[in-house]
Amino acid sequence: MNYAIIRNILGKLMVLIAGLMVFPLIVSIIYQEGIRHYLAFIIPIILLLLFGVLFNIKKPKNTNIVAREGLIIAGVSWLLLSLFGCIPFMISGEIPNFFDAFFEIVSGFTTTGASVVTDVTALSHSVLFWRSFSHWIGGMGVLVFILAIIPESKDGSSMHILRAESPGPQVGKLVSKMRVTSRILYLIYMILTIIQFLFLWLGPDEQMTAFNSIIYTLGTAGTGGFSMDPQSLEYYLPYSQYVIAIFMFIFGVNFSLYYLILIGNIKEVFRNEELKWYFAIVVIAVTLLCINTFKIYDTFEETFRHALFQVTSIISTTGYSSTGYSTYEVVDGLAKVGGWPVFSQVLIFIIMFFGACAGSTAGGLKITRINILVKSMILKIKNIINPRKVEVLSIDKRPADNKTVEVIQNFFVLYIMIFLICSLVISLDGNDFVTNISASLSCISNVGPGLNAVGPYGSYSVFSSFSKFILSLEMIAGRLELFPLLVLFSPKTWARHN
Amino acid sequence: MNYAIIRNILGKLMVLIAGLMVFPLIVSIIYQEGIRHYLAFIIPIILLLLFGVLFNIKKPKNTNIVAREGLIIAGVSWLLLSLFGCIPFMISGEIPNFFDAFFEIVSGFTTTGASVVTDVTALSHSVLFWRSFSHWIGGMGVLVFILAIIPESKDGSSMHILRAESPGPQVGKLVSKMRVTSRILYLIYMILTIIQFLFLWLGPDEQMTAFNSIIYTLGTAGTGGFSMDPQSLEYYLPYSQYVIAIFMFIFGVNFSLYYLILIGNIKEVFRNEELKWYFAIVVIAVTLLCINTFKIYDTFEETFRHALFQVTSIISTTGYSSTGYSTYEVVDGLAKVGGWPVFSQVLIFIIMFFGACAGSTAGGLKITRINILVKSMILKIKNIINPRKVEVLSIDKRPADNKTVEVIQNFFVLYIMIFLICSLVISLDGNDFVTNISASLSCISNVGPGLNAVGPYGSYSVFSSFSKFILSLEMIAGRLELFPLLVLFSPKTWARHN
Repeated sequence: MNYAIIRNILGKLMVLIAGLMVFPLIVSIIYQEGIRHYLAFIIPIILLLLFGVLFNIKKPKNTNIVAREGLIIAGVSWLLLSLFGCIPFMISGEIPNFFDAFFEIVSGFTTTGASVVTDVTALSHSVLFWRSFSHWIGGMGVLVFILAIIPESKDGSSMHILRAESPGPQVGKLVSKMRVTSRILYLIYMILTIIQFLFLWLGPDEQMTAFNSIIYTLGTAGTGGFSMDPQSLEYYLPYSQYVIAIFMFIFGVNFSLYYLILIGNIKEVFRNEELKWYFAIVVIAVTLLCINTFKIYDTFEETFRHALFQVTSIISTTGYSSTGYSTYEVVDGLAKVGGWPVFSQVLIFIIMFFGACAGSTAGGLKITRINILVKSMILKIKNIINPRKVEVLSIDKRPADNKTVEVIQNFFVLYIMIFLICSLVISLDGNDFVTNISASLSCISNVGPGLNAVGPYGSYSVFSSFSKFILSLEMIAGRLELFPLLVLFSPKTWARHN
Repeated sequence: MNYAIIRNILGKLMVLIAGLMVFPLIVSIIYQEGIRHYLAFIIPIILLLLFGVLFNIKKPKNTNIVAREGLIIAGVSWLLLSLFGCIPFMISGEIPNFFDAFFEIVSGFTTTGASVVTDVTALSHSVLFWRSFSHWIGGMGVLVFILAIIPESKDGSSMHILRAESPGPQVGKLVSKMRVTSRILYLIYMILTIIQFLFLWLGPDEQMTAFNSIIYTLGTAGTGGFSMDPQSLEYYLPYSQYVIAIFMFIFGVNFSLYYLILIGNIKEVFRNEELKWYFAIVVIAVTLLCINTFKIYDTFEETFRHALFQVTSIISTTGYSSTGYSTYEVVDGLAKVGGWPVFSQVLIFIIMFFGACAGSTAGGLKITRINILVKSMILKIKNIINPRKVEVLSIDKRPADNKTVEVIQNFFVLYIMIFLICSLVISLDGNDFVTNISASLSCISNVGPGLNAVGPYGSYSVFSSFSKFILSLEMIAGRLELFPLLVLFSPKTWARHN
């Protein structure tokens, strides 16, 4: 194990987080929130700089790393990130309990957007900003950011780190240099973010002040979903809802396609299978929801808007809502289940598995994986019908190698297993069945809201500290696509002979 | 396509069903149920004989069949079986609606045990018997029975039929001859059935009359679960509950292990991985349920008994119940959810995926598949940690070939997909979320009861005719392990060039 390089990268990460924490500190100073809030950011910044510099004194001789070390770096980085990231919540006194604060920041960095805060209007500007900023940071990935800065190792082994942190089964370089690839990705990310901000801020919606626009833009760009209103975007103008719906879709697209557009290779974009599937699934889901919910709303426009908003929100794993599609209340031991018809709720539950495209900021299984799983299955059936004719699984008209398919199938099994086991463990708290399974699925897919008690108006505060911790780990596992955490916690990894 | 042999086997099947229907006719005559009930069985018997003989006039020259034809034979056979099998329900007037009657008999043959009958005490003896007898017939399989009778084709192609109908990924011959294998399996099945009957009938439970003992034995042996009491086995003596719990476990074991015991090869039995897993899962699940439910019951014995009963019932996919672990009632638009704590209900839901051993009469994914899925996943993680060390997946200390693993992974994806799509379709009826997903899972796994409205006291009568039809197909798909129905309904199968 190359401990030197691991320590080195963790050090760089800590300095980076310290730097990023300056932004909420500035917000805090602008709004004159007082000494306690300033310290809430200054203390962790000092700690991070101290450790960061200490870790970086000794330069590693060997910058070579293997796949396993890439995964370990990703796993440890994200745990560290979350441990330091939750300090401001605790010091500011706004989320004093450690498990709550840890859950909240993990939910932020993993771009889940599940919240334990019951009254979001009571949060200060700096805390609101830090929460939403964590979405933006986590969306593209902290390690990707570091790779964009540090000099590239000659053997290209930093690829392993990018692979461990980036969403999706296949991570390709856009250009020959890793470092340039990371920079291009971050540049596209920033440009899109700024465009959305301008659309919201300069739009006709008076509620969308500069600050509100920033909060909702950061949440959309990272496909996170932390909100600053108790009922998310329900009371904003349709204009704002449409803008956010469209950008939720946009941030769910593989960023390399935007690069292809930039360099003028539109042909390749239209050939992308995942994009076609993504678009098709959204169209089908919106149509089904419109048919199922048209009786609820006054006009077709309203029905369509809410259907579009919820579908783009769930499939991009953002989690904003424009209407209360699932409500839940317990009255004298009896459950009052409300919101959209059950069909729509089951549909939303199923879309939670999906996630948007690989290489975007979205979570979930990713459409390319589902595409490959379905294709492999269809090939199997064809093979039974006609065993002599051998067909090869191909993606974007290129044959997919057997190993990719195999990894994805194992990934799927692991995904379902973790989802079910976590559902079981958190059900010890005694919340209702649907709350438990939708919370677990929502966390592993990094969506945010689930159904019933954790629906769009609900909060994860209904869970115990233990369950919140389990769900926090599930969110990280989901964000890093399962393997890094498992490798990190596997005794085999730390056995002497490795 | 070898249509001649398909027609021929279907003909034999119809004669067989006619023969089997004589048994409920005898029951009807014993209890003097009147002319309408006699006709309920006589009419389909005559129809079946007529078609059966007609189909068998021309002998096929070529008895050779390929895998695809085996699947088609299985698919068509089961549809035919169900279409003729539901006639007695309709003519007798006890389940007059076609979709209800079809659902009920499919539930019978597939050994699911889900019922649309709201008052089971109103059913006549002959109908009760036919329902439960269908479990017994479907448990081991009708085609297996035919294979035990007909002369064996020289090239061993009847293997394809056995493979298509038998539960589990690998079907092996016990002895070199297919026909002898089928006979041994049926013999073991009969002997175990008779032993259970004697245990129930001769036991201290006065409620267990000869007729009741027959009904519950047939339901247990086929791991079906049709009951003749509104609250299943809740009001029977603990003795009967223990006997049935133990036999539910026994009928979930791979029958070839009983053959190994018979020929004295105990060593091989103890080496069987699936059996160990099966036993371990039952022990763990019972322990968890005991801990979670001990406050509900007066004594430890009672807690243990109900935990054991429910676990063996669900994992063997039988579906009998000894206690109301899930109840559901809607009072003034509010839902009253009752029964065991949520943790226990989620656990039951998870066990529904499992199913017992391959080569038993149970449904579900089967433990050997889960074993292989988990092993493959662990190997993948080990491979990431240490890419140089190549390990091979082995079952019962023999290496498993890559193709088996691949088929199982595709099977798993298909299983989850069908489960989710059917959940979505039936949710159009507007029943609650948990009712829908548990009903869909229960049907594809051939368990029977689900949770909430389809819980142990509930009935599938809450669903519309359309949903009942969808669930009927799902049960057949589950019983035949997905592929036969898909191959049957695939346009590719019927394309000219095949």
